[in-house]
Amino acid sequence: MNLVDFDKSGGLVPAVTQDAETGQVLMLAWMNKEAFDETVRTGRACYWSRSRAKLWRKGEESGHVQEVREILIDCDADTILLRVKQIGGAACHEGYASCFFRRVENAKLITIAERLFDPKQVYKK
Amino acid sequence: MNLVDFDKSGGLVPAVTQDAETGQVLMLAWMNKEAFDETVRTGRACYWSRSRAKLWRKGEESGHVQEVREILIDCDADTILLRVKQIGGAACHEGYASCFFRRVENAKLITIAERLFDPKQVYKK
Repeated sequence: MNLVDFDKSGGLVPAVTQDAETGQVLMLAWMNKEAFDETVRTGRACYWSRSRAKLWRKGEESGHVQEVREILIDCDADTILLRVKQIGGAACHEGYASCFFRRVENAKLITIAERLFDPKQVYKK
Repeated sequence: MNLVDFDKSGGLVPAVTQDAETGQVLMLAWMNKEAFDETVRTGRACYWSRSRAKLWRKGEESGHVQEVREILIDCDADTILLRVKQIGGAACHEGYASCFFRRVENAKLITIAERLFDPKQVYKK
């Protein structure tokens, strides 16, 4: 499928992931064509990990997979919006529901959310 | 302010913009440090236009500015989430409330939103 313009930006486009029920923005990750095609095919979010340079099947390790409810594409066809059900309730590897758990306030970052799990217990490293 | 890690990715980070009231994801754009600092300082969304290679004060031409209600930063400090009030109701230059007005369905893109304005009328070019 060529629904997304991966070439324009060298093969990777940003994918925003949103909770389909609450509308909370959970995270931003990256997709190449392979990750996008797998996500469409399987109905589970699969990204491209830039740091590890390989496909990142979200939740493969933690069990916190993302079941895809809807995939939207923006006007320029270079950004993907996944609307998902986040299994386990936490998208962030630090144990928060959303990776966006800090707010800019008076030139500082203030944590505005509660941790749902202790990363050390989930990622036994 | 050094709340965001602009260096990691060569000076630009993605900024996701969400309607603060409805939770609708409106668009994704890019920010460099100057755009971010201006956004924080003025309370109006300012991005970096990659195509024009200059600051993009959203709504400067159309009047459809974005009043910033909240700025969130992700766990890796390399993505920004703006929660805004979108003046004029439409964030997308094609006249839709959100740039994400197309859904992936059976390997096609289906338009799922109504146009709120005719771009030709707003951007008199």
